[in-house]
This record gives sequence, structure tokens and C-alpha cells, in this order.
Amino acid sequence: MSDFAISVADIEAAADRLAGHIRRTPLLTSPFLDEIAGRRVFVKPECLQHTGSFKARGAWSAISALEPEVRAKGVIAFSSGNHAQGVAWAAKMHGIPAVIIMPSDAPALKIANTRAYGAEVVLYDRLTEDRDKIGAEMAEARGLSLVKPFDAPMVIAGQGTTGLEIAEQAAEAGVNRADVLVCCGGGGLTSGIALAQADRAPGLRVRPVEPEGFDDVARSLAAGEIRRNDTMGGSLCDAIVTPQPGDLTFPIMSALCGPGLAVSDDEALSAMAEAFLRLKIVAEPGGAVALAAALNRKDRIEGDAVIAVVSGGNVDPAMYARALEAIGT
Amino acid sequence: MSDFAISVADIEAAADRLAGHIRRTPLLTSPFLDEIAGRRVFVKPECLQHTGSFKARGAWSAISALEPEVRAKGVIAFSSGNHAQGVAWAAKMHGIPAVIIMPSDAPALKIANTRAYGAEVVLYDRLTEDRDKIGAEMAEARGLSLVKPFDAPMVIAGQGTTGLEIAEQAAEAGVNRADVLVCCGGGGLTSGIALAQADRAPGLRVRPVEPEGFDDVARSLAAGEIRRNDTMGGSLCDAIVTPQPGDLTFPIMSALCGPGLAVSDDEALSAMAEAFLRLKIVAEPGGAVALAAALNRKDRIEGDAVIAVVSGGNVDPAMYARALEAIGT
Repeated sequence: MSDFAISVADIEAAADRLAGHIRRTPLLTSPFLDEIAGRRVFVKPECLQHTGSFKARGAWSAISALEPEVRAKGVIAFSSGNHAQGVAWAAKMHGIPAVIIMPSDAPALKIANTRAYGAEVVLYDRLTEDRDKIGAEMAEARGLSLVKPFDAPMVIAGQGTTGLEIAEQAAEAGVNRADVLVCCGGGGLTSGIALAQADRAPGLRVRPVEPEGFDDVARSLAAGEIRRNDTMGGSLCDAIVTPQPGDLTFPIMSALCGPGLAVSDDEALSAMAEAFLRLKIVAEPGGAVALAAALNRKDRIEGDAVIAVVSGGNVDPAMYARALEAIGT
Repeated sequence: MSDFAISVADIEAAADRLAGHIRRTPLLTSPFLDEIAGRRVFVKPECLQHTGSFKARGAWSAISALEPEVRAKGVIAFSSGNHAQGVAWAAKMHGIPAVIIMPSDAPALKIANTRAYGAEVVLYDRLTEDRDKIGAEMAEARGLSLVKPFDAPMVIAGQGTTGLEIAEQAAEAGVNRADVLVCCGGGGLTSGIALAQADRAPGLRVRPVEPEGFDDVARSLAAGEIRRNDTMGGSLCDAIVTPQPGDLTFPIMSALCGPGLAVSDDEALSAMAEAFLRLKIVAEPGGAVALAAALNRKDRIEGDAVIAVVSGGNVDPAMYARALEAIGT
């Protein structure tokens, strides 16, 4: 595996840096989910992670890996979503400044949350301004380090700590062979978990799950080379829609992952409702696609157990109410 | 403490029986909650427990403590709520029959869930039938053991395992002195936690939290003797409304607990919304009253940290949508 951007040793080192700061999320079960899925279902609820998503792991890993004098100058990130909150939180906990570049039409709640974590939010106009130029100029002027959302070794290493936990927790539950379904955008979480498990629990096979119509990773894996999405808009699961897999994440996924799966928006909403009813956790649409696949793709999944990562829970109340409507009162 | 119905040794023995079967729920935090409360807030989310509430602990404890030949005949319980599901689940996991006596006008979902856990649900007409008589006849005929909802030693011991976990987790978080707010109905959970912590973490002071207008425990503690509620109906937090504290739980609470607190239905709904937004956990109204007190009674709470137990998450979607409406979109 020496061709990859990182090794398991990098994930182990990230786990050491994360210890005491990141939550070890539990592995949840419900007999009701088992019945729907036709096999035992284990859910890794990263929505219970700090900031409500796994992104806190990668952000902490990246920031904690910087040289102290570099880190002290601060970090910068481009994001209006979970990555923004993860970076803002990790920076605050490290006592360093964070600049988050967001489009000016980002939801007010997300801007407010990112600011509440202590970050400086810089808004840009998507139509008239070049965010990369704004970011590069600020980074240059202040000496800020860029924290990429997925295609960076220390970010992948941080997300991979989820895989170390799953490997341990699955063994404790007596599960040595199972498909591990992971909500997949650019592939940071998916590739990190795949690397960790290939080393620690080779019977656990990682498979990326994406929204239907935005399955660039599944198509890339099938083709053996990177494929792009035709469009970026129109999915309720927009938090995990990316143009294409990362240059660093794709080779890892290509070598280690099983075939990708895709689910509809309605299946994602229904999985959010099941997570509410049966696990009492809050999942966002993009964070529910892996559970949706576990519940709705039983013929495409192998083995008598399946593990699904719920990657985040940052959903606005209106969208959540929509998910609950499907199950009535 | 020898006057009490149980001792810490009983809680420790229950913890041994529960090990590997009951979830050790985490202790969650959010800087947003800290800001609202004006101190550090730690939440013990028993909504993430099996069956969605702490009741699984007491049920498991009671059933596992029966003599094997007695246990094999089965158990019986009166409940249309969390206790029903806890008993049904624990009985199923022990491979024994469970009979749950419910009013015929109980919500269809709760009846269905209890049946789905494998229990035999016996419905009675609240207006024309005597549930105690029905239950006693069935118990007699089949040799079923009654599992009480709170006023039984092994049930209190099981709920008390929550307190052993809180004591350990608070110490890990560096909290040695704090009010521990517990959603309180008959006092099984409150008295169990109080006993555990009096032994393991004497700086943690348990305080019961009830719905306003149904604060029989708070008034009983203040009076030094048992007081009843005037009425049983009309609270959204009906899951924790009981006529009066238990004969076994009251002496424990009276000796070990601080003054009770009470919150309004609106405060409970608002706390459900904060749990959704900040912790990504699903709380039911009665399960949210302790968090509501942590967030809204800052002048009545002592110390720079507070621990709130979220005792359950079994709420129907319509009620949940109502809680979320308060925070808009």
C-alpha cells in the first residue's frame, strides 16, 4: 500500500493526536432495523461527533499535525457546511484563528454556527468573485494554512480513525465479515476507513454510498478511472455531492473498496425517519444515505451483518420535519 | 444507608448483570449549550439506550435477578410507555415470555412496538375493567413475575447503573462537583443515581426535575413526607407524571437529593429542540425536562458544571415537529 497518500501508521498517529478531543462514537443497533434490512445492522453515528459530523476528526488531525509555529498563524478553509464547522471548532480548541470562506448566499444558520465556533467568516459573491483568489490572497497575507475538505493526507488520516473504531467495535460485537457502507462525497471518510480496516479488519469491506444521479465515485470505481458528475445541483443530499473523487482518495478507494451503491432522496429521508424512530439520532440527508442503502439494497449487500456510517446530523428543522412526515404521526 | 431498599452493592451487582447487554451511553457536550446555561453542560443521553430509554436498565436488572426457574415462566408489567418496551425487550433477550397490560386507548404505535419486541399485549378498558385484577389473575394462572416500573429494589438497582457511569465519566471530564439533574417520575432513576453517586462521587448532587404542576417529588422533598399530585393529566411530559413518589424511592431521595426543580411544557419542547440542534439526539418531552432545567434555571443551580440526564427519546413525529417549530427553519 506504499503508493497511497497515507498509511495505517498515519491513521494511528492521527488517533493519538485525536485522543481525548474527539468522541469515540458508539455502535448502535435496533431489532427493527435488522428486520427491515434482513440482516444485523450496526450504525456508527458520527452525527454524535463534535460539531455534528465526522469532519471534526479530519480538521483536528490536519490542524494538530501542523508545525506549532505554522499552526499559530491560523488556518483557512472553503466550505459552507460540515467542514467549515469542523475546522472552526478544531481551530478554536487549538486556540488559533480560522478563516472560513463561504458564499454570501449560504444559509444564515450555517454562517452563524461557524462564527459561533469562533471563526472569521469571509463571504464572497459566487457570481462575481473568485473564491480561490480571495482565499489565496488571505492565506498569503496572513500565513494561513489551507485545510482541504478531503484530498489531503492528514485529513484522510483523521477520518480514518473512524475505521479504527469500527474495526474494534465490530470485533467486540462478533462481526468479522461485513459490508461497511460509508456516505461518500470526495472520499476522505471512505478512503480513510478503507485503509484502517484493510489493516485491522480485512473481512470488513468498505463500499461508498452516494445520491442517485451523483454517483461519481461508484462510476469511477467501475470504470477504473476518475469520472465526473454531470451536474452538482438538485440533490437533497447536497452535503456529499462533489464534482469527482479526489486525486488522493480515488487510488485508495479503487484498491480497497467494493462496488458503490446509490440511493434516492426519498430513501435518504426515510432512513432519517428510521434513525429518529429506532436509534434516536438525528441524521442529515447526506448523512443518511449509507443507512438508506443498508435498509433498501439488501440484494446488493453481502453477508449476515452490515455496518452503516451516519456521517452527520446538521439538518435544518424544516427538512427534518419533511423526513418525519413520511412516517405520519 | 442501611435503611434503604438497596445498597450500592446491589447497583454494582446489577451492573455486572447488565454488562454486555446494556449500552454505556456517552456524556455529550456542546459549547452552545454551555453558553445558554452559563456553565459547562454535560448530557447523559439515555435516549440512546436500547428501546430508547433508561427503562431497559431496570427491566434487565429485575429480570436477570429472578431465580432461573421463576424467570422461565415469564414476566408481566403494567405500562403503555417506556417501561413496557424495556420489559418486553429484556424478556425477549432472556428468551422468556412477557405480558404487558395496556389500556385499549394506548397509542397504536406503542402497542405495535411492544408487540414487535415479542411481548403479549393484553388490552383493557380503562372505564369498565380493573387492570390490577386482570394482571393478578394472569400472573397467578401462569406464574408470571411482576416487574414494577420504579418501586422495586432490583429496578432501582438497574437504573442506578446510570449513576455509576456518570460518576466515572464526570471524573474523566474533570468534574468532581456538580448538580446532576434527573427527569423524575416515580423516582426509580433519580434514587438509583443518587445512591450510586453518594458512594462514588459524593460531590455530585442529584436533583429531580419534574413538569410544572406535577412536582410531587419536589414538594415531597420540601415537606419531608410524601405529597401527591392533584391531577394526572394535562402535561406534555406525561411519561414522567406519577401520582406520588415511591415508598422505596422517596426515603433515598429524601436523604440524598437536593431540592427539586420544575419546568414548563414550553421549556421542555425548547430543550428537545436544543438537543436536536446541538447534540443530534432525539429527546421526548418528559425526557427533556432535566436539560430544560439546566438551560433555564441557571440561578437555581450551583457550581460551574451541570449534568443533565436525557432519559428517553420515544416521541411521536407530530410532537417532535411541534418542538422543532419553535426554532423555525
